[in-house]
Amino acid sequence: MPRVFANAADEILEKEYKCLNHGFVRLIDYMGSDEAIVQAARVSYGKGTKTVREDRTLIRYLMRHHHTTPFEMVEFKFHVKLPIFVARQWIRHRTASVNEYSGRYSIMPEEFYMPGEEDIKSQSKTNRQGRSEEDIPSEVRKKVLDLLIAEQKSSFAGYTEMLESNVSRELARINLPLSLYTQWYWKIDLHNLFHFLKLRIDDHAQYEIRVYAKVMGEMVKKVAPLAWEAFEDYILNSITFSKTELTALKEFLPTELAAQDLDNFDLSSYEIAELSDKLKRIQKL
Amino acid sequence: MPRVFANAADEILEKEYKCLNHGFVRLIDYMGSDEAIVQAARVSYGKGTKTVREDRTLIRYLMRHHHTTPFEMVEFKFHVKLPIFVARQWIRHRTASVNEYSGRYSIMPEEFYMPGEEDIKSQSKTNRQGRSEEDIPSEVRKKVLDLLIAEQKSSFAGYTEMLESNVSRELARINLPLSLYTQWYWKIDLHNLFHFLKLRIDDHAQYEIRVYAKVMGEMVKKVAPLAWEAFEDYILNSITFSKTELTALKEFLPTELAAQDLDNFDLSSYEIAELSDKLKRIQKL
Amino acid sequence: MPRVFANAADEILEKEYKCLNHGFVRLIDYMGSDEAIVQAARVSYGKGTKTVREDRTLIRYLMRHHHTTPFEMVEFKFHVKLPIFVARQWIRHRTASVNEYSGRYSIMPEEFYMPGEEDIKSQSKTNRQGRSEEDIPSEVRKKVLDLLIAEQKSSFAGYTEMLESNVSRELARINLPLSLYTQWYWKIDLHNLFHFLKLRIDDHAQYEIRVYAKVMGEMVKKVAPLAWEAFEDYILNSITFSKTELTALKEFLPTELAAQDLDNFDLSSYEIAELSDKLKRIQKL
Amino acid sequence: MPRVFANAADEILEKEYKCLNHGFVRLIDYMGSDEAIVQAARVSYGKGTKTVREDRTLIRYLMRHHHTTPFEMVEFKFHVKLPIFVARQWIRHRTASVNEYSGRYSIMPEEFYMPGEEDIKSQSKTNRQGRSEEDIPSEVRKKVLDLLIAEQKSSFAGYTEMLESNVSRELARINLPLSLYTQWYWKIDLHNLFHFLKLRIDDHAQYEIRVYAKVMGEMVKKVAPLAWEAFEDYILNSITFSKTELTALKEFLPTELAAQDLDNFDLSSYEIAELSDKLKRIQKL
Repeated sequence: MPRVFANAADEILEKEYKCLNHGFVRLIDYMGSDEAIVQAARVSYGKGTKTVREDRTLIRYLMRHHHTTPFEMVEFKFHVKLPIFVARQWIRHRTASVNEYSGRYSIMPEEFYMPGEEDIKSQSKTNRQGRSEEDIPSEVRKKVLDLLIAEQKSSFAGYTEMLESNVSRELARINLPLSLYTQWYWKIDLHNLFHFLKLRIDDHAQYEIRVYAKVMGEMVKKVAPLAWEAFEDYILNSITFSKTELTALKEFLPTELAAQDLDNFDLSSYEIAELSDKLKRIQKL
Repeated sequence: MPRVFANAADEILEKEYKCLNHGFVRLIDYMGSDEAIVQAARVSYGKGTKTVREDRTLIRYLMRHHHTTPFEMVEFKFHVKLPIFVARQWIRHRTASVNEYSGRYSIMPEEFYMPGEEDIKSQSKTNRQGRSEEDIPSEVRKKVLDLLIAEQKSSFAGYTEMLESNVSRELARINLPLSLYTQWYWKIDLHNLFHFLKLRIDDHAQYEIRVYAKVMGEMVKKVAPLAWEAFEDYILNSITFSKTELTALKEFLPTELAAQDLDNFDLSSYEIAELSDKLKRIQKL
Repeated sequence: MPRVFANAADEILEKEYKCLNHGFVRLIDYMGSDEAIVQAARVSYGKGTKTVREDRTLIRYLMRHHHTTPFEMVEFKFHVKLPIFVARQWIRHRTASVNEYSGRYSIMPEEFYMPGEEDIKSQSKTNRQGRSEEDIPSEVRKKVLDLLIAEQKSSFAGYTEMLESNVSRELARINLPLSLYTQWYWKIDLHNLFHFLKLRIDDHAQYEIRVYAKVMGEMVKKVAPLAWEAFEDYILNSITFSKTELTALKEFLPTELAAQDLDNFDLSSYEIAELSDKLKRIQKL
Repeated sequence: MPRVFANAADEILEKEYKCLNHGFVRLIDYMGSDEAIVQAARVSYGKGTKTVREDRTLIRYLMRHHHTTPFEMVEFKFHVKLPIFVARQWIRHRTASVNEYSGRYSIMPEEFYMPGEEDIKSQSKTNRQGRSEEDIPSEVRKKVLDLLIAEQKSSFAGYTEMLESNVSRELARINLPLSLYTQWYWKIDLHNLFHFLKLRIDDHAQYEIRVYAKVMGEMVKKVAPLAWEAFEDYILNSITFSKTELTALKEFLPTELAAQDLDNFDLSSYEIAELSDKLKRIQKL
C-alpha cells in the first residue's frame, strides 16, 4: 500500500530496529498523528476553541488532565521479534491486537536470546523482582553463558529429532525454552501504547523488555512529536506524592508563595495557576 | 495528512454520506485492507502457506473458522452525525474509541431527527421491540409529525432561554430530547466493526440505526472487498441451526449423499469436504 | 473462604441509597473483598512473601506501585436509577457490563430529574464545562424550574398520546428529554471502578454524576476498606507534579534532607525510602 | 437473593480438579447464577415479561438471539495450574483478569508436563495445526518420553545452578522449557467464558487445553445449569451453514413443509416459527 505522507515517520516505516541479539521492532503502519488527536478533541469542545488554543497547548492540556480518548485516535502496527519470556510479559497488556507465529502450524527457527555478558547480574537485594547493580564474578558470567548455550543446543536437537520422527509439531515444541524467539504483529492505539511504555520503560521492568519499549518510544516520537513531549513531561518524568507524603512536603515548602515566584519557569500562565492551586492544597493539609 | 493510496476506498475519504434527515457518515481515515489481513494471518502460519493459498481463499478460510484476530489488523475512523437515541444504542458497542461533541462545553445546534411519514408505524404485535409492517392511519402519522415538531421547537426555545439567562450549559441542556443530533469520531477495527454491522444491519435493529450500518457496510466493501464478501457469505447470510433444529432437519435430508451431489455448487473442494462433514454430523444425531 | 461470610458490606446489600430526586444506587452483589486482592497478589509473589507483609501493607504497596491486576479480582454489581444525561456520561466507561431498561420493549415511567433550586447555577467563566460558584438571581432559578417542569409534562403527554395511537414504542420515545430517568444493572471490577470513581468524584465531573460516585465510594469502603483507604491516600488525594513543575518545586525545597527529617510523619520505613528517592530525583533536575 | 444460598455449585468450591499430570482447576468463587441472568434481562424488558416467560424459556431466548449482555452478569474466579505452553494459548483471551505466579519474584517449582504415552501422536496430514489419529510406533513414543524427561531434568539443573550462584531469578529462568507448570488466578464473566469454552472445547484446540476447558464446562454446568444447557443446544452443538452451503441444502430439502411437520420435535411453538422462517429463507435463495 504505497503512501505519500508529509510525516517524518514515513522514513522509518518497515525498517528493522535491532533489539537484543536477534530481535527487532518494525513500524509497519500507523494511522493519524498529532493532528488526529487535535481533530478528535475539537469535536468534543466544538467550534469555540478552534481559534483559542493551538495544537501544542491543546495536546498538553489533554495529557495533563487525563483526557485520554483523543489519544486513542492514533493507531500503530508493529512487527516484533522477541524472546518468549519477553512475549509473556508483553501480552499481559490486553488492549492490543496480536497475531503471533504459531508453533502448531510451523517449525520454530533456531534462534535464542543470549544476554550480553555485562547484562548477567546477581539478584537484587532491595528489589525482589530485579537485578542487582553489583558485580557478579566473571567466572559466574562465563558459566551462565555456557549453561545457556549448551541447553539451547540440546533442546533444539531434541525438537529436531522429534520432528524428524514425525511427532506432531504442537507436541514436539513443548520443551523449547523461554529464551526462544517468536514474532508477532502487534497493533495498539496511542493511549494504550503510552500506558505500555510508561510501565515498560520504567526501571522496574525487566531489562530485556525495556530495550523494546525504548525503541518504540522513539518511533512514537517520530509519528506524534507533540504527544510524546507531553507524555514525557506529564507522565514519564512526573512524580506523584501521596496524601501523607504531601503532609511531609508541606513542612519543607514556604507557607506563602507570591504569584511571581512561579514566573521564572517554563510554565504557561494556565500551568502557573494550576501549580499555585496544588501548592495551596498542600498548605491546607 | 495527504496520502496517495492505490485503494478504491480513497475516493470516498472524508465525503459525507447522508443518513436520515440531518445525519451523515464520513470515512475519515483507515489503516490496512485485505492485504493487512493476509499479512497478519501469514505470520501465524509461517512460511509454509505462502504459496499454497491465495488471498481470497485464505480470507474466506479465516472468516469461516472464526480466526478473527487478523481482521483486527484493519482499522477505520468515521465521523458520524446521528440522533442521540441512535447514539445510545451505538455506544453499547464497547470495543471502539469515541470522541463526542459535548453539550457541557458547547452549545448544541438546533437539529432534530424527524422520521419520514412512511417510517411512522404501529407497534409490532410479534416483535415486542419493533414496528409493525401494517399500515397506520395517515391522520395518526400527521399527528405524530406535528407533535414531534412542536415539542422540538418548544424544548429548544427553553434551552435558548436558559442559555440567555446564563444558566450553565451542562444544566440548560437536560431537557433537550433524544431526537436531537449529536456527532462523534468513532474508531474501530474490522473484526469488531463486522460484529457491529451484523447486529445493526439485522432486521431486529431499529430502522434508524440500520440506515447508518448499511452505509458503513458499503464503505467496508470499498476498503476490504474480499473480507466483506466473506462476511456476507459466512456471517451475514448464513443460518445457524440449534441441535434440536438439526434433529428436525435430519428427517428431511437424504440419509446418504454421494460426494458428487455437492459438486454443482460454488464450493471449493475444501468447502465440499466441510459441508459433507456437517451433513454426516446431522445424520449421526 | 467460606461462602457464608461476615462482611460488613452484607448489611447494605440490595438497600436503596437515594441519589438526586428519583434516582438510587443499590449494591446487588459483590465477589471478593480485601482478602481476594491479597490472595491474588500472593500467587504472583509466591510463598516467600506470606509471612513478611501483612494485608494492609501489601494492599498499599500494590496501590502505590500501580500493580492493578489484583484489584480486578473484586467484582461489584449495582442497580442504578439515573437520568439519561447522567447515563450518557457514565456509559463512556467501557470496562463494565450493562443491562439497561429498554424503551423499545417497555413504556418509560414518567419520572424526570429536577435540580434542587440551589443547584441551578450560572456558567463558569474559568471552567468551560462547569457551573459557576457565583449566585444566579433567584427569579432565574424559578424560571428554570418552571421551564423544566412545563417541558417535561408536555413531552410526556405527547409520548402518551402517541402510545395511545399505537405508534411503535421505539418511535414514540424519541422526543423524551435527557432528564428522564432510566435504570440499569452495572457490573465492574474494583480496579476499573476506582478509575471511574477517580474521574467522577472529581470536581470537574458534573454535579449530578458526582452524587452517584460518592454513594458508590461509600459502598466500596464497606466491601474493601483497606483498598479504599489506599485509594484515598495514593490516588484520590495525591498530587502529581509534571517535570517542569518539579523544576519549580526544587527551588523551594531544602537541598539536603536528613533521613530523620522524614521520621515524624505517618510513613513506613519503606515509604520514607521512596519519598527520599523522589526528593533526590527532584534535586537532580 | 440471600447471600447464604443453596447453590449446587458450592460443594465444588475450592476443590482441586486434576488436569494433565500435575495441573488442576479450582473454582475459587463465583457471583450469580441462572437467576442473575434472568434478573438482568428483565430490567431490559421491563415489568411486562415477568409473568409471561419462565426462566428457562427466557435464558434460551437470550442465547438463541445473541442477547449476550445478561450472561456477563455472572462471574467466575478460577485457580489454575497449567503448563506454560497451555498458558500461552489461554492468555490470548483478553477479556479476563489474571494474576500469575512470577518467576521474577519467586523460584519456579520443578514440575513439568509429561504427556501420557497414548497422547503422543504424529503430525496430522489434514489439519496443519494438529495431531493425527494414526498410530505412531511405540519406540518413537518411548524416545519422545525419554527426550522430554532428560531435557527437563537438565534444564532444571541448570536453573538451580544459576540460582545457587546468585544469578538474578529473572535471568536464570530464561531457559526453562514451555512444559514447565505455572499457575494463576483467572476471573471472567460467563459470556466471555462461553466464548473461551466454545473455542477450547473444539476439536481444533490442542488436546492439553481441551482438558481444562472440559473441566471448567462441568463447573459452569453446576453454577448455571440452564445457561449451560442453552449454550450446548444453541452454540456448542449447533451448525452454521454459509450462504452457498444453504444453496446446496436447498436442493435436498422438500420445497414445502406443513406446519405440523415440525411438531414432533422438542421445539416450542416459538422455536417452530423460527425454524419455519429459516427454511423459508432457504427456499427463497
